[in-house]
Amino acid sequence: MLTDITIPTVDGALSERVRTAIDLKTKPPGSLGRIETLAHRMAVAQNTDAPSADPARLLLFAADHGLVEEGVSAWPQEVTAQMVLNFLAGGAAANAFAGACGAEISVIDAGLAHPLPEHAGLTTAGIRTGTRNAAREDALTAEETEAALRFGASLAAQHADDGAMVIALGDMGIGNTSSATLLAHVIEGLDLSALTGPGAGLDADGVAHKLSVLERAAARHTLPLPPLAALAAYGGLEIACMAGAVIGAAGRRAVVLVDGFISTAAALTALRGRPEAEPFVIFSHRSEEPGHRLMLDALQVKPLLDLDLRLGEGSGALLALPLLRAAAAMLNEMATFEGAGVAGKNG
Amino acid sequence: MLTDITIPTVDGALSERVRTAIDLKTKPPGSLGRIETLAHRMAVAQNTDAPSADPARLLLFAADHGLVEEGVSAWPQEVTAQMVLNFLAGGAAANAFAGACGAEISVIDAGLAHPLPEHAGLTTAGIRTGTRNAAREDALTAEETEAALRFGASLAAQHADDGAMVIALGDMGIGNTSSATLLAHVIEGLDLSALTGPGAGLDADGVAHKLSVLERAAARHTLPLPPLAALAAYGGLEIACMAGAVIGAAGRRAVVLVDGFISTAAALTALRGRPEAEPFVIFSHRSEEPGHRLMLDALQVKPLLDLDLRLGEGSGALLALPLLRAAAAMLNEMATFEGAGVAGKNG
Repeated sequence: MLTDITIPTVDGALSERVRTAIDLKTKPPGSLGRIETLAHRMAVAQNTDAPSADPARLLLFAADHGLVEEGVSAWPQEVTAQMVLNFLAGGAAANAFAGACGAEISVIDAGLAHPLPEHAGLTTAGIRTGTRNAAREDALTAEETEAALRFGASLAAQHADDGAMVIALGDMGIGNTSSATLLAHVIEGLDLSALTGPGAGLDADGVAHKLSVLERAAARHTLPLPPLAALAAYGGLEIACMAGAVIGAAGRRAVVLVDGFISTAAALTALRGRPEAEPFVIFSHRSEEPGHRLMLDALQVKPLLDLDLRLGEGSGALLALPLLRAAAAMLNEMATFEGAGVAGKNG
Repeated sequence: MLTDITIPTVDGALSERVRTAIDLKTKPPGSLGRIETLAHRMAVAQNTDAPSADPARLLLFAADHGLVEEGVSAWPQEVTAQMVLNFLAGGAAANAFAGACGAEISVIDAGLAHPLPEHAGLTTAGIRTGTRNAAREDALTAEETEAALRFGASLAAQHADDGAMVIALGDMGIGNTSSATLLAHVIEGLDLSALTGPGAGLDADGVAHKLSVLERAAARHTLPLPPLAALAAYGGLEIACMAGAVIGAAGRRAVVLVDGFISTAAALTALRGRPEAEPFVIFSHRSEEPGHRLMLDALQVKPLLDLDLRLGEGSGALLALPLLRAAAAMLNEMATFEGAGVAGKNG
């Protein structure tokens, strides 16, 4: 998967040095818990003793899904494009949270069913308009999949080259919990019925119908599928772009901040294809979508937040960003025991 | 407890109005989970449709404990004053996190064993220098307890009058997990051995010794004790000040943001004395100190964060502050479905 992109390795000496630096700060060792491991992770990823969460950029990828023909979502497909206009007008949760935490948003039409008028704030991938109906045929061709991965990787690399230290991932796409669910199932072998949830608001009958559609879709292939084939068979264009962005950001030593269920499916796909990207990826929150916990467990990660979110848009990533900023401040600004003249522990 | 301070009641019509406003925002209803309940809570507390987390002020109360004579802490008593100097010099975790999240810190000598030289950034309560050894006698007289409560309440009210919308509570005091543990035990009847933990770093032998000291201390009184008597018997001066600050802030409709184990003991004391302060109090995180979970369960609250913190200083409150800011932004800045021209759910 994007094998021409080199993902750098971790500097073991730096890793040790940062661990020691954290322990010398004026606090009982380990007393800042996950903020300490977060600071260490950021430093190692960014290859510096002084990591930073700023500037942070949310790449917000929107796309449509042919599978919605099968009635897998509680919302009409036109909401995807309407929400893109809402992002551009600044009225969505992602905008409110980005403003609150001081991140910038880049909105990407990764494959809307119907292109929007040109807008200075909108980047267009131009690969195709929506995916095919994955219950009947592969959602994307191999070429389209490669193009979406490449587009996401190039965009992330470009933002990193522009100075972004953190690349947060966000998604918008009516029907995309179905795509994410299928990816987790066909790549990872996770149980489809356990993974399948209400998405943006299906009732129990809706979830049962969604499961029957996903079972039919999954039956088209012999499982498991390798990540690239899985993306072509069941991927969304926004998910393929996000998977590419993970690799592109890691290639530039930017920290990747993953949002919820959809972007975790993208990260899982990228990490199964390019495991060496793992040190660069931070999982921001555990969503209410039941399959999210299963994917996170499969990845053996514990996300930073658990706030019963189930929106997407990068909203959870933006809520976690201030923790990265605090972690960096701990490492960069706190005094040492010796420097501050504070006594050590007894004995 | 500070019965002359009137705590306002909640406006039921406002509460309903804000709930409706949150549901009209461009997101599936409930999809922002605890951020939605947080926004509602802030609005109701501040009595406005447009709540705010800014400006936020951390009141960081430091005091010493006579009980440390009994060897209940892993750290020497002089660390309390040394850390106060570190706060004033800007080198502590609280400073780093306050800078990262845009809060201001007010440092208070609530009762250090040895007064520090005057410093422009240091407010001094002037009640007494440290508490008495609570294993042998009551830590504070009734008059000293009342004075500490009053001091904390007045300070919080003064910051609210200066414009602070959020009053975060922080503590520093070698030995203060012992005081907090005793308060939870004698007020709430929680099991002393389950409550007693390593604090800032005791080993298993140290915890066992601490428990024996706390058992001896608790045996001085017939339990349970009412909150005011409990504070006098076992309180720290910083804890009494924080309990007063809860009441003083609630009296001014400021949101109170509670930190970890110590400030939760203060909040529990205040809320058992003045239950009508409950709508104003937000619990920021669950710490690693084992008794914290027990206290939070007794209060029937689920804090926002769970990051394995065990530092105090208001560090966890400052990490949670950006969530309050995001919650306010959701309510104040997000578009409605109608306003943004976004379609509703199917059916």
